[in-house]
Amino acid sequence: MIPGLPQKLTQHGLPQRVTVYEVGARDGLQNEKAVVPTSAKAEFIERLAGAGLWMIEATGFVHPKWVPQLADADELMPMLASRTFNEHTRFPVLVPNRRGLVRAAATGAKDIAVFASATETFALKNLNSTIDDSMKEIEATLQQALARRMRARGYVSMCFGDPWEGPVSMRKVTDVVVRLIDAGCTQVSLGDTIGTATPGHVRTLIDALERRGVSRDRLAVHFHDTYGQALANTYAALQAGIATVDASAGGLGGCPYAESATGNLATEDLVWMLDGLGITTGVDLQKLVDVSSWMAGILGRPAPSRTVQALMKGSKNG
Amino acid sequence: MIPGLPQKLTQHGLPQRVTVYEVGARDGLQNEKAVVPTSAKAEFIERLAGAGLWMIEATGFVHPKWVPQLADADELMPMLASRTFNEHTRFPVLVPNRRGLVRAAATGAKDIAVFASATETFALKNLNSTIDDSMKEIEATLQQALARRMRARGYVSMCFGDPWEGPVSMRKVTDVVVRLIDAGCTQVSLGDTIGTATPGHVRTLIDALERRGVSRDRLAVHFHDTYGQALANTYAALQAGIATVDASAGGLGGCPYAESATGNLATEDLVWMLDGLGITTGVDLQKLVDVSSWMAGILGRPAPSRTVQALMKGSKNG
Repeated sequence: MIPGLPQKLTQHGLPQRVTVYEVGARDGLQNEKAVVPTSAKAEFIERLAGAGLWMIEATGFVHPKWVPQLADADELMPMLASRTFNEHTRFPVLVPNRRGLVRAAATGAKDIAVFASATETFALKNLNSTIDDSMKEIEATLQQALARRMRARGYVSMCFGDPWEGPVSMRKVTDVVVRLIDAGCTQVSLGDTIGTATPGHVRTLIDALERRGVSRDRLAVHFHDTYGQALANTYAALQAGIATVDASAGGLGGCPYAESATGNLATEDLVWMLDGLGITTGVDLQKLVDVSSWMAGILGRPAPSRTVQALMKGSKNG
Repeated sequence: MIPGLPQKLTQHGLPQRVTVYEVGARDGLQNEKAVVPTSAKAEFIERLAGAGLWMIEATGFVHPKWVPQLADADELMPMLASRTFNEHTRFPVLVPNRRGLVRAAATGAKDIAVFASATETFALKNLNSTIDDSMKEIEATLQQALARRMRARGYVSMCFGDPWEGPVSMRKVTDVVVRLIDAGCTQVSLGDTIGTATPGHVRTLIDALERRGVSRDRLAVHFHDTYGQALANTYAALQAGIATVDASAGGLGGCPYAESATGNLATEDLVWMLDGLGITTGVDLQKLVDVSSWMAGILGRPAPSRTVQALMKGSKNG
């Protein structure tokens, strides 16, 4: 070893291979104050692919008024098309509705992601709609996407707690997940938007979904580190048979300073654990650290990922 | 909920009760640049006890030349004796050798902790000795401690990786653990000094120790967050039956800035998870957050604990 790589010691009952669904370029950059130039975004995505990531959410076709950081989605996608990637690499894009879908399709996007809320309050605040109305728009969007032979993933926000409603019942979450799958999503990502989940909760929700007929290979998990729980929750999800984990390179979207260190699970911290568990991801950790360090330079601040910090400084004792 | 407390959803096979072994006042403050006034240390410990912690490592009788932050150990302990604590509260003190034991005994200390290394290189660098020679001094120290009817815990450093030697064999670790228990330690804490451990490694080591006759109720775990793995490793240890977890209030000893965010597991992040898992600790999370915020004020910088950051700012969405 001589730190840089963890020692491999696997455990029974875990997936042999995990797909890291990289959200840094979309969910990460969307939550950064700085707006990154489009060409740097394209280079970022190219470098992420060069580090072995192959499922890279690239951007979102959301309204530029609400998310100015992603206002360049229509320019970014053609830039990616002009670059050379491994044929297996995919670039899903976030699409909130049929209008977004048309924009995404015009850029040649083949994979989309739609987003739903498990709670009425968040649906009202974030989607300006009831759950039912927002699901109807999502279903219409998915119908058109499938007609265009696109693949679709669904995100569900507030699966483990809501800042206004408090605890979220399993029933609310499973209802939305089942509806997304029935509408054609090949995968649904369970989002712990406010980071309150703990491992027993994760396991319980996955079990509840199985009882509703949702098999584990249709599920992904999306944890936040607001209370430092993201990786422990991920481990619980792996034990429950989940094999797709969302993460953000460098921990993009969470600020390393006290004010808002509530971001996504850092891809490097995730890959460190998966490497140690002997689980194949295809990701080259040191290359990924280099990419995140480069992006931190563009953003003008250190990466929140602890693994990036440790490997950048070549720390030999902590 | 309305964040502040996680939703409780337990899991089968976990301990119903966990002892949080609080190391902030010793291991935490020892690794802070600022030297905290002795009276503030006494107040810190009193407040930690007020938050429900009852196993609080108070200081260390190490050479003040090497650890100036703990040079006031002889003054601190009488201050604690003059304050009122719950009768069950214990204040172990770190003791490196017989000389330290004499000092500790003079202050009325009833619980000590000795520290050993699993690797020769770290023994040489940190203890200035071979493993065998350092163990002989530890054994002599333990013998005198037991004669004084003290209780003793052993720490083992570098159980999961060594910055100079790389991977550490299970055999090296189990040899030292068994020797500490044979010499009279009632508990041995497995230290991931450089933070490289992952959950499978944790489980494998605990299993290896059981095969050497070390039962799980004799073990504690001490994880570092250098690579963000501490809480996932803790969850794996709980699943393996470990019921004592070392943690540092507020994440003391780890700096929240990029340069050295390699500290101990934060007690608040741990308690958040344990609360969520329905595991009893006796700790009042919000009170503990208040204590850590107060100490952060004394140190003049934010607490590294994500839970402290989240609960201090009353974050309602992350």
